[in-house]
Amino acid sequence: MYDVIIIGGGPAGLTAAIYTARKKLKTLVITEIVGGQMTWSSDIENYTGFSLVNGVELTAKFKEHVESIKEDLQLIEGVKVKGLEKNITGFVVKDSSGKEYYSRAVIIASGKNPRHLGIPGEDKFFGKGVAVCATCDAPLYKNRDVAVVGGGNSAMDSLLALSKVARRLYSVNLNEELLGDEFLKDKITSNPTITFYNNTKTLEIQGDKFVTGLKVQRKDGQEEVLAVNGIFVEIGYVPNNDFDTLTAKNERGEIKVDQNLATNIPGLFAAGDINDAWGEQIVIAAGEGSKAALAVSDYLNKLK
Amino acid sequence: MYDVIIIGGGPAGLTAAIYTARKKLKTLVITEIVGGQMTWSSDIENYTGFSLVNGVELTAKFKEHVESIKEDLQLIEGVKVKGLEKNITGFVVKDSSGKEYYSRAVIIASGKNPRHLGIPGEDKFFGKGVAVCATCDAPLYKNRDVAVVGGGNSAMDSLLALSKVARRLYSVNLNEELLGDEFLKDKITSNPTITFYNNTKTLEIQGDKFVTGLKVQRKDGQEEVLAVNGIFVEIGYVPNNDFDTLTAKNERGEIKVDQNLATNIPGLFAAGDINDAWGEQIVIAAGEGSKAALAVSDYLNKLK
Repeated sequence: MYDVIIIGGGPAGLTAAIYTARKKLKTLVITEIVGGQMTWSSDIENYTGFSLVNGVELTAKFKEHVESIKEDLQLIEGVKVKGLEKNITGFVVKDSSGKEYYSRAVIIASGKNPRHLGIPGEDKFFGKGVAVCATCDAPLYKNRDVAVVGGGNSAMDSLLALSKVARRLYSVNLNEELLGDEFLKDKITSNPTITFYNNTKTLEIQGDKFVTGLKVQRKDGQEEVLAVNGIFVEIGYVPNNDFDTLTAKNERGEIKVDQNLATNIPGLFAAGDINDAWGEQIVIAAGEGSKAALAVSDYLNKLK
Repeated sequence: MYDVIIIGGGPAGLTAAIYTARKKLKTLVITEIVGGQMTWSSDIENYTGFSLVNGVELTAKFKEHVESIKEDLQLIEGVKVKGLEKNITGFVVKDSSGKEYYSRAVIIASGKNPRHLGIPGEDKFFGKGVAVCATCDAPLYKNRDVAVVGGGNSAMDSLLALSKVARRLYSVNLNEELLGDEFLKDKITSNPTITFYNNTKTLEIQGDKFVTGLKVQRKDGQEEVLAVNGIFVEIGYVPNNDFDTLTAKNERGEIKVDQNLATNIPGLFAAGDINDAWGEQIVIAAGEGSKAALAVSDYLNKLK
């Protein structure tokens, strides 16, 4: 019986584990990949304290930190959680092999995955020109040519962020026009550095070591290769839930939490991108991991 | 005219600045001390990515990070903010010399200071046995003897955290008895490792290189020196407001914020310990700094 099981080993889950173990709560982290989304990030320049680090390096630092805690902390890697149940003493977490783990509290920190285009070259050039976070990576594309794929608010946010640094921008969008907040649309459509490819399908990402082009197809069937150094894929994120989280969720599938990151189920908390709290950044997720750990400690202190 | 002025240069303020500058918002940080409360921390083991670092080192890392950003970011150190006003174009921030700075948005990240006992030895041994955060520092006192000064919930939280690691604990409290949540009181008063000194005043902190004792005075006037290696001062925190923040506050003087860290004044945000959001940790403050910066960016995007 653990005091707390943390589902997910990204910035939120690992930070939560550091806090609960330091509070002498018997802690188990179950994760598919240590580091989560962070592992795919190219240059990270906005995790305070590390001016420039890549995702693999920062993941190694986080893992080293977790491993420096010798007591009350166990990490199981390479395992998918497939089930979560509440019983009279707490929770049962089941992994993909059917193994069961028991705890008094649970923090879900399973994160999100960016939705993929599913076209050739996308995986190959991920982190080598293909990016999914303009807040993180826009400054790396100063004076370069960049395409943003997607037609919603996050695509427009990316275009706006990139318009301050990039040389030439292409907005590539499946629909008739961009859909989202009007103020964003006004700023985007009046920007002379952006060329609009509405009604346009992406076909292939081309490159050698890094991205060199994006092959697209217009509505009339005409194909074209946009010469770009960067491609931001902004077509949304999917919460990582291979199991029933038991909790209330919003329309995007994010787990609803209160200010203390508690869900509607007593003893069940959610931290990081998986919840409906605002902002999806490594440092925000880490902060939420800490907050959820403090909330778990409070919750367990109050139990008989 | 800056896009955003950030008042305070602790983990929240510096992280906010990194984010706003990377979004090409013209950013000014005004702070008395870079690092804030962090600078006084002895060993920090819970800022994810740094297994073990002291406050001065982590402050240096944060400062180095801010200084690595060459554009759109200005940092003024050694200056106290004395006034904040809203005008038709945004905000006016005044420093102690009367100098004025103008911006479209403001993030208040001025933090808190722990309330001091004001007894001899307290300043001298700060970080050398005198501590103010059990969540941060309790694990450093494994098998040592420790006194916790204070009689409220945070003192009891500290006692509970320390009871899992320390050898012998003294609860030193000015009042008849401990005041706070009953479940905490039950756990504390039934714990055999804790000796209670109620109705007791602290007189002096003694030591050589590190703390060796706490001199106290009982209600009957009798003096005694408790032989301890650590003294946790848990008598509350005071928000750092040498100026009128314009905003609504709670009964502890913390600035009220919503989920996006916006105050009740449009364009004015608050991040870190100064706000009423829960949890007062470096990594939580940093996460809030990032979140406030994203909110400022959104706010300014929406302005004409």
